[in-house]
Amino acid sequence: MSILTKRNTLAAIVFTGVLSATGFLSLTAQAQDDGINTASFNDDGSVNQPVNWRKWVFVGAPLTPNALNDGKAPFPEFHNVYVEPSAFKAYESTGKWPEGTQIAKELTSIYQNDNDETGASSEVSGRGFQQGEFQGLELTVKDTKRFEDMPGGWAYFSFGHKPQPYEKTAMAFPAESCNACHAASAADDFVFTQFYPVLRAAKDSM
Amino acid sequence: MSILTKRNTLAAIVFTGVLSATGFLSLTAQAQDDGINTASFNDDGSVNQPVNWRKWVFVGAPLTPNALNDGKAPFPEFHNVYVEPSAFKAYESTGKWPEGTQIAKELTSIYQNDNDETGASSEVSGRGFQQGEFQGLELTVKDTKRFEDMPGGWAYFSFGHKPQPYEKTAMAFPAESCNACHAASAADDFVFTQFYPVLRAAKDSM
Repeated sequence: MSILTKRNTLAAIVFTGVLSATGFLSLTAQAQDDGINTASFNDDGSVNQPVNWRKWVFVGAPLTPNALNDGKAPFPEFHNVYVEPSAFKAYESTGKWPEGTQIAKELTSIYQNDNDETGASSEVSGRGFQQGEFQGLELTVKDTKRFEDMPGGWAYFSFGHKPQPYEKTAMAFPAESCNACHAASAADDFVFTQFYPVLRAAKDSM
Repeated sequence: MSILTKRNTLAAIVFTGVLSATGFLSLTAQAQDDGINTASFNDDGSVNQPVNWRKWVFVGAPLTPNALNDGKAPFPEFHNVYVEPSAFKAYESTGKWPEGTQIAKELTSIYQNDNDETGASSEVSGRGFQQGEFQGLELTVKDTKRFEDMPGGWAYFSFGHKPQPYEKTAMAFPAESCNACHAASAADDFVFTQFYPVLRAAKDSM
């Protein structure tokens, strides 16, 4: 083995070890040429459940309780929103979402205790809302080639709006199911950056 | 330069580069013997502001609006809570918080639009709460030697309950300011794991 080969081998070992240790190695993700770890798709067009999304970069947690929406909130839970780290890094550099961007939304029920007419619970820190149990997992992927008919190239998927275990694969929703709201009200390329100070700060750091 | 030295140099370069790329390199953190990246302290006993806490592992976002607390919530914002990754990894393995654990809480105001008597705003996704602007940064550190008089060895710090820029350093609060509530109601070693499904799932994965 030449010195050069030894160097490369060592680098690969170290690189893989560190990625694994930090939880950023997505076992099923496919790296694009530009270094973006995008989702993996199956022959039937379904996408595979992301790996380790809870270690992606958290950007915000909108909350629309059923108690404030006549019992009919489309998502009555906390929406924990995470961006896949390589896409987040590109966004920090360019202020734009690269091809292959993945954004996950994990729904988390409101903590149940003595919840009142607003859905709030009274705890030592005051009357309000805390997170209870996982209640669903969704994903959006920006891919203007694969989803050329979707506005902005964003496709939306659900691995189940239910407790774990979530589904392992998901088919894209029709454009009118999700894109419509995102197109109408999202501040920046179909993403609600008005609700995500972490994203605004990332863009400001350019 | 010997081959061995070249190897070590290369490993160091790769290691540092990857840590920087993933945002997990805390410039001021001090690694303990057991691999936990703990906070850095100054000669006057103050702790330095953590680095890159928004890329730590998000665990939950309690919300106690002023509108639901007679205008007097101690923290009327979303509390975005993050655990330093090496401590999170140890928690995943052992179910216990290691010496040197850092947990950050970034306060984020409720998004202002047409907020009603509950503090909620009406958006395309329904009536509820979204995140507005950063409003403060706090930190807790578990160190039973440095803080032997604090319950559980946990000390609590604030870098300002105000918009950025936050303070660069902070002194520990007296035990009665923060530990009292954590001692009374936190489910697990002074941490409110009842409100953090990510932590319960991490513990369940042991």
